Amino acid sequence: MKQLTGIKALAFDAYGTVFDVHSVVELAEKFFPGKGVALSQMWRAKQIEYMYLRTLMGRYVPHDQNTEAALKYCMKFLQLPGGEKERKALMSEYETLKPFPDAVAALPKLAGLKRSILSVGTPDLIKSLVTNSGLADQFDKLFSVDAVKVYKPHPMTYQMAIDYFGVDRHEVGFVTSNYFDVAGARAFGFKVIWINRKGDIPDELGLLPHVELKSIEQIPEVLGIEKPQAVMA
Amino acid sequence: MKQLTGIKALAFDAYGTVFDVHSVVELAEKFFPGKGVALSQMWRAKQIEYMYLRTLMGRYVPHDQNTEAALKYCMKFLQLPGGEKERKALMSEYETLKPFPDAVAALPKLAGLKRSILSVGTPDLIKSLVTNSGLADQFDKLFSVDAVKVYKPHPMTYQMAIDYFGVDRHEVGFVTSNYFDVAGARAFGFKVIWINRKGDIPDELGLLPHVELKSIEQIPEVLGIEKPQAVMA
Repeated sequence: MKQLTGIKALAFDAYGTVFDVHSVVELAEKFFPGKGVALSQMWRAKQIEYMYLRTLMGRYVPHDQNTEAALKYCMKFLQLPGGEKERKALMSEYETLKPFPDAVAALPKLAGLKRSILSVGTPDLIKSLVTNSGLADQFDKLFSVDAVKVYKPHPMTYQMAIDYFGVDRHEVGFVTSNYFDVAGARAFGFKVIWINRKGDIPDELGLLPHVELKSIEQIPEVLGIEKPQAVMA
Repeated sequence: MKQLTGIKALAFDAYGTVFDVHSVVELAEKFFPGKGVALSQMWRAKQIEYMYLRTLMGRYVPHDQNTEAALKYCMKFLQLPGGEKERKALMSEYETLKPFPDAVAALPKLAGLKRSILSVGTPDLIKSLVTNSGLADQFDKLFSVDAVKVYKPHPMTYQMAIDYFGVDRHEVGFVTSNYFDVAGARAFGFKVIWINRKGDIPDELGLLPHVELKSIEQIPEVLGIEKPQAVMA
């Protein structure tokens, strides 16, 4: 496995990387049987599109507003019968996302490095997620893009980590499952670890991750903290 | 019908507004029967996503490169058998797009105003499209975002029109079918005419067009150049 050396700080993306958004899909399916998966996929795509558009237009709003606007659009587009009740319930599902087991297992092994979350979520939401999942002690800092009022993959978002930790760009290991974040972090100059749990293909942006893994549990080995696992023959 | 007054210059989006991208869908369907529509839709979405991402990362490339990269990704993602031959053919289809009949009919009636194209396409491609479709005399200026090295909806793209024509933002009538362009032009301060041929719903960005029309042919009436059509009882 490829090794990354000289890493002093780690920054983890939150949604889909440390925290599993699957429960949102389940709730959507419960409200709208047979259409929950389509709603969830479209909601996620629209949420990201609105992040980009608002940043490009210089019209930042906090991410919860963005998420709710995207949900409103998708429910209208898909002509779903639900109203405010369903919308509020789906929104609050985001506050109680569960962490992926591989993240919970790996984080304590990485305690020798500065560890952080760097997320598009609002400060309150990131704090709730980390606290509710018992991970508060596992992070030295929680960075929200709300401090800079632009969304990923704008370079100002990644800049927060190097300013705070006082390290160089290539000394930050950036961990994300989302390819727009892989591209943005790579363009910025971080060392990028792509957690590709589902076997996605990379985008054609000329910006590849330094390392591609199936699980966050492999990170201690990539950083030389843990010895390679013996492979069963 | 709602009237717009005080308009001195018009700027038209190209793809999907003045020029019909339907022939691209047809060719895709010819190459990949039963999958051409899916390919075209995904290609268009990915092309737009790459525009946003490259602008946000400060990694502009000319639009033909962007379009080809998006096509490469989509063909891989959909596991389509084609290679370079199909890709080149689909790419060159973009050079010979046909104008919508409503655009051809309406443009001469708008000759009293400054008329322009404001497109994400490269200067060469916009010029080819306009020349090949016999519309060269209908435009005073062709603006390409290549001059400012960012994509729509970044305000620098819309700024080109007011700088060149020497008019105020609210004196520009901006005509587009694409909602990201409606939002961007509205945020910038243009008077926005949304050509909504397919009955789409507006995005939830708090940025609505000033006028929504089914056809470019209705623009002379909206601008008070042509009298309202008598409605048959």
